[in-house]
Amino acid sequence: MKQLLYGVAYYDEYMPCERLEKDIEMMKDAGINVVRIAESTWSTHEPQNGVFDFGSVDRVLNAMHRAGIKVIVGTPTYAIPTWMVKEHPEVLAITPKGPGKYGARQIMDITNPTYLFYAERIIRKLIGHVKDHPAVIGYQTDNETKHYDTTGPNVQVLFVKYMKEKFKTLDNINSQFGLDYWSNRINSWEDFPSVVGTINGSLGSEFATFQRQLVTDFLAWQVSIVNEYKRSDQFVMQNFDFEWRGYSYGIQPRVNHFEAAKAFDITGVDIYHPSQDDLTGIEISFGGDVARSTKGTNYLVVETEAQAFTNWVPYPGQLRLQAFSHLASGANMVAYWHWHSIHNSFETYWKGLLSHDFEPNPVYIEAKTIGRDFERLSPHLVNLKKNNKVAILVSNESLTAIEWFKFNFSSSKNYNDIVRMMYDELYKMNIGCDFVNPSSDNLEDYQMIIVPALYSAPDLLLERLNEFVRNGGHIVHTFKSGFTDEHVKVRTTHQPGIINEACGIYYNMFVEPKNVSLRDDPFQVGQKQNTVETWMELITPTTAEVLAYYDHPHWGKYAAITENHYGKGLATYIGCIPSSAIIKKVLEQAVKKANLWGVDQELAFPIIVKSGINPKGKKVHYYFNYSDNQNSIKYPYNDGVELLSGS
Amino acid sequence: MKQLLYGVAYYDEYMPCERLEKDIEMMKDAGINVVRIAESTWSTHEPQNGVFDFGSVDRVLNAMHRAGIKVIVGTPTYAIPTWMVKEHPEVLAITPKGPGKYGARQIMDITNPTYLFYAERIIRKLIGHVKDHPAVIGYQTDNETKHYDTTGPNVQVLFVKYMKEKFKTLDNINSQFGLDYWSNRINSWEDFPSVVGTINGSLGSEFATFQRQLVTDFLAWQVSIVNEYKRSDQFVMQNFDFEWRGYSYGIQPRVNHFEAAKAFDITGVDIYHPSQDDLTGIEISFGGDVARSTKGTNYLVVETEAQAFTNWVPYPGQLRLQAFSHLASGANMVAYWHWHSIHNSFETYWKGLLSHDFEPNPVYIEAKTIGRDFERLSPHLVNLKKNNKVAILVSNESLTAIEWFKFNFSSSKNYNDIVRMMYDELYKMNIGCDFVNPSSDNLEDYQMIIVPALYSAPDLLLERLNEFVRNGGHIVHTFKSGFTDEHVKVRTTHQPGIINEACGIYYNMFVEPKNVSLRDDPFQVGQKQNTVETWMELITPTTAEVLAYYDHPHWGKYAAITENHYGKGLATYIGCIPSSAIIKKVLEQAVKKANLWGVDQELAFPIIVKSGINPKGKKVHYYFNYSDNQNSIKYPYNDGVELLSGS
Amino acid sequence: MKQLLYGVAYYDEYMPCERLEKDIEMMKDAGINVVRIAESTWSTHEPQNGVFDFGSVDRVLNAMHRAGIKVIVGTPTYAIPTWMVKEHPEVLAITPKGPGKYGARQIMDITNPTYLFYAERIIRKLIGHVKDHPAVIGYQTDNETKHYDTTGPNVQVLFVKYMKEKFKTLDNINSQFGLDYWSNRINSWEDFPSVVGTINGSLGSEFATFQRQLVTDFLAWQVSIVNEYKRSDQFVMQNFDFEWRGYSYGIQPRVNHFEAAKAFDITGVDIYHPSQDDLTGIEISFGGDVARSTKGTNYLVVETEAQAFTNWVPYPGQLRLQAFSHLASGANMVAYWHWHSIHNSFETYWKGLLSHDFEPNPVYIEAKTIGRDFERLSPHLVNLKKNNKVAILVSNESLTAIEWFKFNFSSSKNYNDIVRMMYDELYKMNIGCDFVNPSSDNLEDYQMIIVPALYSAPDLLLERLNEFVRNGGHIVHTFKSGFTDEHVKVRTTHQPGIINEACGIYYNMFVEPKNVSLRDDPFQVGQKQNTVETWMELITPTTAEVLAYYDHPHWGKYAAITENHYGKGLATYIGCIPSSAIIKKVLEQAVKKANLWGVDQELAFPIIVKSGINPKGKKVHYYFNYSDNQNSIKYPYNDGVELLSGS
Repeated sequence: MKQLLYGVAYYDEYMPCERLEKDIEMMKDAGINVVRIAESTWSTHEPQNGVFDFGSVDRVLNAMHRAGIKVIVGTPTYAIPTWMVKEHPEVLAITPKGPGKYGARQIMDITNPTYLFYAERIIRKLIGHVKDHPAVIGYQTDNETKHYDTTGPNVQVLFVKYMKEKFKTLDNINSQFGLDYWSNRINSWEDFPSVVGTINGSLGSEFATFQRQLVTDFLAWQVSIVNEYKRSDQFVMQNFDFEWRGYSYGIQPRVNHFEAAKAFDITGVDIYHPSQDDLTGIEISFGGDVARSTKGTNYLVVETEAQAFTNWVPYPGQLRLQAFSHLASGANMVAYWHWHSIHNSFETYWKGLLSHDFEPNPVYIEAKTIGRDFERLSPHLVNLKKNNKVAILVSNESLTAIEWFKFNFSSSKNYNDIVRMMYDELYKMNIGCDFVNPSSDNLEDYQMIIVPALYSAPDLLLERLNEFVRNGGHIVHTFKSGFTDEHVKVRTTHQPGIINEACGIYYNMFVEPKNVSLRDDPFQVGQKQNTVETWMELITPTTAEVLAYYDHPHWGKYAAITENHYGKGLATYIGCIPSSAIIKKVLEQAVKKANLWGVDQELAFPIIVKSGINPKGKKVHYYFNYSDNQNSIKYPYNDGVELLSGS
Repeated sequence: MKQLLYGVAYYDEYMPCERLEKDIEMMKDAGINVVRIAESTWSTHEPQNGVFDFGSVDRVLNAMHRAGIKVIVGTPTYAIPTWMVKEHPEVLAITPKGPGKYGARQIMDITNPTYLFYAERIIRKLIGHVKDHPAVIGYQTDNETKHYDTTGPNVQVLFVKYMKEKFKTLDNINSQFGLDYWSNRINSWEDFPSVVGTINGSLGSEFATFQRQLVTDFLAWQVSIVNEYKRSDQFVMQNFDFEWRGYSYGIQPRVNHFEAAKAFDITGVDIYHPSQDDLTGIEISFGGDVARSTKGTNYLVVETEAQAFTNWVPYPGQLRLQAFSHLASGANMVAYWHWHSIHNSFETYWKGLLSHDFEPNPVYIEAKTIGRDFERLSPHLVNLKKNNKVAILVSNESLTAIEWFKFNFSSSKNYNDIVRMMYDELYKMNIGCDFVNPSSDNLEDYQMIIVPALYSAPDLLLERLNEFVRNGGHIVHTFKSGFTDEHVKVRTTHQPGIINEACGIYYNMFVEPKNVSLRDDPFQVGQKQNTVETWMELITPTTAEVLAYYDHPHWGKYAAITENHYGKGLATYIGCIPSSAIIKKVLEQAVKKANLWGVDQELAFPIIVKSGINPKGKKVHYYFNYSDNQNSIKYPYNDGVELLSGS
Repeated sequence: MKQLLYGVAYYDEYMPCERLEKDIEMMKDAGINVVRIAESTWSTHEPQNGVFDFGSVDRVLNAMHRAGIKVIVGTPTYAIPTWMVKEHPEVLAITPKGPGKYGARQIMDITNPTYLFYAERIIRKLIGHVKDHPAVIGYQTDNETKHYDTTGPNVQVLFVKYMKEKFKTLDNINSQFGLDYWSNRINSWEDFPSVVGTINGSLGSEFATFQRQLVTDFLAWQVSIVNEYKRSDQFVMQNFDFEWRGYSYGIQPRVNHFEAAKAFDITGVDIYHPSQDDLTGIEISFGGDVARSTKGTNYLVVETEAQAFTNWVPYPGQLRLQAFSHLASGANMVAYWHWHSIHNSFETYWKGLLSHDFEPNPVYIEAKTIGRDFERLSPHLVNLKKNNKVAILVSNESLTAIEWFKFNFSSSKNYNDIVRMMYDELYKMNIGCDFVNPSSDNLEDYQMIIVPALYSAPDLLLERLNEFVRNGGHIVHTFKSGFTDEHVKVRTTHQPGIINEACGIYYNMFVEPKNVSLRDDPFQVGQKQNTVETWMELITPTTAEVLAYYDHPHWGKYAAITENHYGKGLATYIGCIPSSAIIKKVLEQAVKKANLWGVDQELAFPIIVKSGINPKGKKVHYYFNYSDNQNSIKYPYNDGVELLSGS
């Protein structure tokens, strides 16, 4: 990227009246220098099978170009036209809930060859049509792509072939997956049952891996087509999204972002988050750290909220705070979904930068200050490089396996709760993090690795983690790490499997805490915060030092949190779900022992500090105040330039 | 009507033993002068395809006639016989949940010609059979008719034809409904997808309008058949019901009562309501006001509760209070569902006037006093005429559109909550109300119109409301009024669309209140009641006077409630959902400014006052005490006759 | 039984590594003397249609035999192999939710002849194969068998035939079931609709009876096959289970245990219960009392928890407390599900005696003490005989009927809540109970019968209960008893139907209590416990003495709890759901008046006393402390031997 991009999604097709020139004028006023178009409007561009009409695309490209606004063109494949479904109902995904119905987006079977045929044709037609336009700087393939739970008979056939390829023999599958249980054994490939009804968590988890592979393959296929057309100065990206809890919460269960990102030139993501009194910046930082880590470089925030819902309309100043927070995590683009609020259909109340009346409003007016600053400071802020010492190891496989084997019957907590339990405290103490995944080859580049609930992992990965410690690294493991192998088969050794060596502990029992605290409040968090919930392992130290014991009449002899010197390094183990205050203290101790405590850590949320090296080789420090109160801080570094004021 | 009717539903067919003469004797003792029969018992009257047996009808008609009890005969079409479904499974409605199953009532496709053929035949046979019987005073067509979500392929074809007729071209539909969004554009009539899966709120709302039309048409068709037979002294009515929340709560979403009532001689309704400590009379009044307004005259309460459920068994005196409350709203009939409690099947615990033992019980004994009083006072109380100055404008279209676009993700509030928010306070301050709907031609007859959440409305209606104010009327608008047009397309102007002129305000942002109150408690309701929840519009006055500002650190500069002099009239605008105490104060002010505050308003709930002009031209005042405590009031009028005591 | 059995379920087939000899060594250490095998592993024993492999069975039988451990062999029919479903998808049960999917256990149509053909073949092959093995002491047919809601067209045909056989004519059915209601009348057998959609509670309840009969027949059929093979020293049993609320709560709705048990030599059950702080012993006692009552003799606890879930892992000492509690109720076997924790699939967190690491752990170590004591004390404790004076009358028919007609719309209480409301208080006051059912011929053997909510019962049963009182017995009836006949038709007499004679009361109204207590706290339970909830009948005494009136402004004249001398006996009637403290007092009074209050009743929960006569003719007293605190008690009998210590 040569400059910071400040953008919006733009849908000329949705306009209830002629707006293009007026919109562009207002965009220019706001410093908008890029728009994304076309990713949702297949039925407009191909109104009938084989009839193409790129009128709205051309008109927007030309007008934007005249105004000096760049355009990203999306392949419109994630929402299919009515004619396709009427002519070929089989393009709809069959899911565990049954056959699909037309209406929403993301309802097709991404393996269906009819769909693929039409998708390829519209991609070739559209991208071929626009590729030489000077306004076009890049492409987005599809949008928020997932597998949409496609599980029809054809997908089942693909899965059986995948299993045969991967496991070779049924004996191997029966053994690895424990299929003798409840008479699920498969003794002939012809007998392979649909996985839709399976109760076998190993098989179910493998199917989830297979489903994520479908997404990776589908996206790589789209990229390979677009690559045939794209100019050397154009990029191809995808708009990834995260586990959705009404906002972008955690690792995406249905896509392996690390794998899927490989085909792309750059990673794009959408990040939506609570706002108003609930704005913390955590999701901005989390989503950004994941996005940056997928390719180890800068990324694009392809969508984020402007006004959006009634509970998200930003307070004065928040839109600005959010925008710079994205940059501080390494984003090179901040784009709103979307420019104007939509007057019909479904997302009418997911409001854009403009309200339905298209008039300037306080949010738009604040955006104008952001656009001006982005433009002015772009040379200082674009392409920010990070050099984090701490990584969090995340695993789609563990996520899925914990979906199968939940903490207990009443808790709604899942894998991402554990990831966020760790991440949030690191964020609040201003520790910059990268994310790594089981296939990452750069684990050894870090000084400290956080391993939340690595429930399903092959021996090699666990041994590699042990070696990381042996060689002087610091790991903070949580409960459940090491419990099962890559086929979600529980290890037959002492737990935590394999990593018990580095951690110097073992357990073979675990219980649900009721009125359990840590004995003698070892982290001095006070009675209200000295709590343990949902899950506790009954840990016996072998070589580890016990940082905390449980306080309980019957389980009081077991350790809750331990620390172990192993080789040249140190391994912390958290055997339960304690309060966030305890997590904070444990991480604080670990960070200090890893010699990663610095001046930024003397500040803490709501004061957030982010930094990086800019293209001029200068260190850029961002200071954010996530509270409603004024705060002054002492700048802890040598003299610098305050970029916003220039002083 | 010549006299007040006091009635019960009677099912000789359900009796576990011979009861007819004994039942009639007990009815006579209780002053029951009318029974409704036959609306649920098709399988008894037509035991096999084309085999008819009206034995139980004849026997009841004859016995009732001998006793001087009148009979209303229902067409038994809302519950279909087993033989029909076995012979023609296609009569079952296909709904979004899939094909239907036999068992319940109200499961058929009311557009299915096989069903219609059999329905017409049983109607002609039954009504032809009874029409000359001297006991028969009228007919009910079907019962609590709705469309039962029939959405099979045949209904889809009808809908497409309806769309073609109404909108002429797909371009028009695509544009009005914003179908480009998410690639939903329809470019050929053959591509028109089933509306079952649609995510387009405009299309979904139009389908709901179409569905309500199916009900109107079906009922009019039944009436046209019955009209071929009925004597000039007989009437045809329907038993309408309301939005059901375990009781009759609000406007019926699935029937347009104003349209459907047109075919009938008189409107019938069923009204069920909380009782015991929770009896307020609101539902009696609300349902009565709606029923009376559909045809602008008296109505029949075709069903209401006797003992019913365990939580509804009336306290001593409540059955009497209820009965006279119905009369006070203009009912000419009060009938219980049902005479005896049913010994088998489904509604065994929806108890009638008699328990399962058929013995006199406290509720029956109280009914006897009611029957005597009805008979004695009938000349004074029948055909009560109302002349209300206040009307509430309700809209099925707005109701449906707000189902599509709810206030937010967590609130269960819907359109009817807003209607009731306004209605309940008017009821409690003894303001008599009528209801009007968008097609009413008598808006101008009122001095004050209440407009709750008129979310979807054509320009003409909104301009007519502005003119109403201009000409000296008073309107109280709530939030969301004027937001979208008749196709649920958000207006591109300032909000509230069009009515902003009369209201003298505008807004283009709205948020979800958290810890928001009104600044300085302008209505002096005290801290606990000075609250705003769920929805708030950020209003800027143009010419309006601000009655209340929000109290909030960031939204405090916006108005919450305003008042505007416009032409000769006054328009109040409520831009948020405040507490009931605030609504009461706002309405109280508005009523006073409209010069509608009178002596009845000096009394308030639990003392309820209703009045009207009787056929003798005298004003009848009803005074009800809805509390458990004795209350004495000063009669504020000139000398009158206390009808119950005769003094 | 010659000795106490201490056992585990054992699945060699599920082992991730060779464990047999090591497992047996550890079993021997723990005193395990029986294992149950093969009931879940059809696909291992018949890997392809007609190909049999009993290798794992033989290997386990031989190894166990060498070690002197006995084996129970299960027929593996409750979990079907993949090949069967691929070859014959029709074996899957069609349920009201639609066609079945392969994956779980208990998904087949137990009436399907294809399934029955294969089931019979595997039973004959397996049982024929093992019958002469000296290790085999008995067989289990199927497992936790139920009807799995099989309701496909074939089942419907069976049901219609059942109805024809039982009721002869449609007129009879129409009349008994009240099918005229909502036009459900059936006038031709061809018209008989699928019962899946029925809203007729009488028909639905009859279908439930028919479904339970399917289970009885299926199990008897399996037993008849096994009986062809079994040696005279071998037994056949079933593993029954209970209403499941995350643990074994109450009477099983889908099986009539009394009927189904008839085919078996001995009754087996599984009993799972809360543990840790929530361990009360109630479920152990309840399940045991039901099991013992089915055949009036000792029973086997075929499955109970070892570690199981995180919330069930026993505190030190609890496993032991539980084991002896089973014996004290008359169990001759206590077996854990299961030996080792399973490494894959579904129940990975339902842990066995061993954790996944197969190492000794605290629970296993505690089991070793139990095994030693069982072996040593077996001659004193096996075949304990009970001679209880109190019986609880339970009824599957009433259970189902109350499912159809719940107490009200908001309560989740069902029939079993009422059974447990009574049972729990008897347990806590150390009253030994048997269970009887409507077909029991030994009602007259008891001095006191508790009749919770006998909602559906034929006249003869109610008359027999009246006679029981007349002859000097004591009955405690609750509300709803006698309300409907055996076809769930409400009686047309005063309520409670027929038993009103013995109870000396009547009512015909019932209401939902809100803020209702008993007037003047007649049982002196204090304000907080003096409460009534969910249901109250408005009772008028005829000859009864009123033990408690309601305290309520309008229902205060009605009785809540009454007592009536009738003939030589006494009938108590509880007309509402009071607090457990009130139930306790009512039962305490009743027990005293029945002269059943003894020394054991001077102790109370958490001190639990159980007793019986051992084969030596000695009375064995068990004393349990279900609290975490030490307690000492005075032994109230003559000198005895303390069996555990031998002193």
